[in-house]
Amino acid sequence: MNAKPPCVILDAPQLAENIGAVARAMANFGLYELRLVRPRDGWPQPRAWPAAAGAESVLDTARIFETLPQAIADLSFVLATTARPREAVLPVFTPREAAARMAALGPGSLCGLLFGGERAGLETADVALCQGIITIPVNPARRSLNLAQAVIINAYEWRMTFDDRAPANFPPPPPAASGEALMGLYEQLEAELETSGFFHPPEKKDAMVRNLRAALGKAGFTDQEVRTFRGVVTALSRGRGKVLAKLAAAREAVATASRPSRER
Amino acid sequence: MNAKPPCVILDAPQLAENIGAVARAMANFGLYELRLVRPRDGWPQPRAWPAAAGAESVLDTARIFETLPQAIADLSFVLATTARPREAVLPVFTPREAAARMAALGPGSLCGLLFGGERAGLETADVALCQGIITIPVNPARRSLNLAQAVIINAYEWRMTFDDRAPANFPPPPPAASGEALMGLYEQLEAELETSGFFHPPEKKDAMVRNLRAALGKAGFTDQEVRTFRGVVTALSRGRGKVLAKLAAAREAVATASRPSRER
Repeated sequence: MNAKPPCVILDAPQLAENIGAVARAMANFGLYELRLVRPRDGWPQPRAWPAAAGAESVLDTARIFETLPQAIADLSFVLATTARPREAVLPVFTPREAAARMAALGPGSLCGLLFGGERAGLETADVALCQGIITIPVNPARRSLNLAQAVIINAYEWRMTFDDRAPANFPPPPPAASGEALMGLYEQLEAELETSGFFHPPEKKDAMVRNLRAALGKAGFTDQEVRTFRGVVTALSRGRGKVLAKLAAAREAVATASRPSRER
Repeated sequence: MNAKPPCVILDAPQLAENIGAVARAMANFGLYELRLVRPRDGWPQPRAWPAAAGAESVLDTARIFETLPQAIADLSFVLATTARPREAVLPVFTPREAAARMAALGPGSLCGLLFGGERAGLETADVALCQGIITIPVNPARRSLNLAQAVIINAYEWRMTFDDRAPANFPPPPPAASGEALMGLYEQLEAELETSGFFHPPEKKDAMVRNLRAALGKAGFTDQEVRTFRGVVTALSRGRGKVLAKLAAAREAVATASRPSRER
């Protein structure tokens, strides 16, 4: 992978809150270098910091530039994010394709993601300074993405090029139960169902067994879950036995009580 | 593909602005069914609408539920988005994997994406009602995603399962120039460079030509760009000729002027 994450360049951003939200989105996926070209309301703007929500360091280290050529002077691969087609003849990438391109750059190549201001977007002359265009495949009826949303999708795709698994704080899933353990559950269940008269008519039993096994198999039970469900089957069937025993006892008592007294 | 996009279920959302931003994020990628379970401040909340920025219809049609089981009653595949590992033994997906699963569902299966409230997130008992967990591979140092950001990444991944190209408003790129057109440019350039004495020392000419061709080839010029650069080469070389002619004329004039008058 490319050693350094892309830096994010905001050209003429307007709202401080959006700059802060961009910083937060960057930090969520491990981007930390923010460059601002002519922010409308100057810099620093105190309202940006609360919106960064934990990513203050991205704002603290943000750099300000007077012109776009200055802001990208040390970068060798800059992609402009835009929702509008341009006269500039540049390759057009989705965020996923763009991330793959950036990841494939040599380790010494610094790259950047360029975003225009909230209202005006990028000028075509600015796009022409870039090596390609990123456009996000949006719903044609609702193209307008919030600035930080456009940033986070690109930041996410960059991270996915080298970290496409659940975070390490998620323990690996417990192993699924073995075929032998599953068969133990199936056979116990089927034996109890046989006793209870579930398989009716008898000629359908094989198909019913197959369907039960396939339905339960889809859950991908763990060993613990197999043990739990064996207990469930036992509880249901023994519980039924207890009910039957109580019922039989009650009937017997009734029968005894209703006999003529001389028979006792 | 699964005919219907997943619906988005927000469990106990707090801020109206965030609900509006979620609606906007959904609409950006073609999701339109929003369900709210016990929104903290009731519903409707007027402050949600400005934040939806064009996705008002998602808010207008949002449905309110008292409990999560009611909210997911008609859904057959619900995934809970959470940044915290759970006691519930459920499969864990990245947004990309989750989108692939949802896309692979039968066309009659309605699916949903469940998100917890801004502060408390989801209860494990709520997660246990779902068929799986989605977790976003974030920077371990900055896990906390804004609610609408978590929604948009999942909405984006859903759309990418069937629409992973530049939007249709981007025209297809013009075809790259043919090998023949490129050779015409290369040969014109090399002839002019030969004339100008660029290939020095002569035994390095072959390597220099190869390097020039490889460097220019990487740009993937279109036919129009080849024509433009042929004009550039012509302008530079003829312009150089004109300068040389002017220089020669000026020298001649100086020489003439400096001759003794009787030689004129």
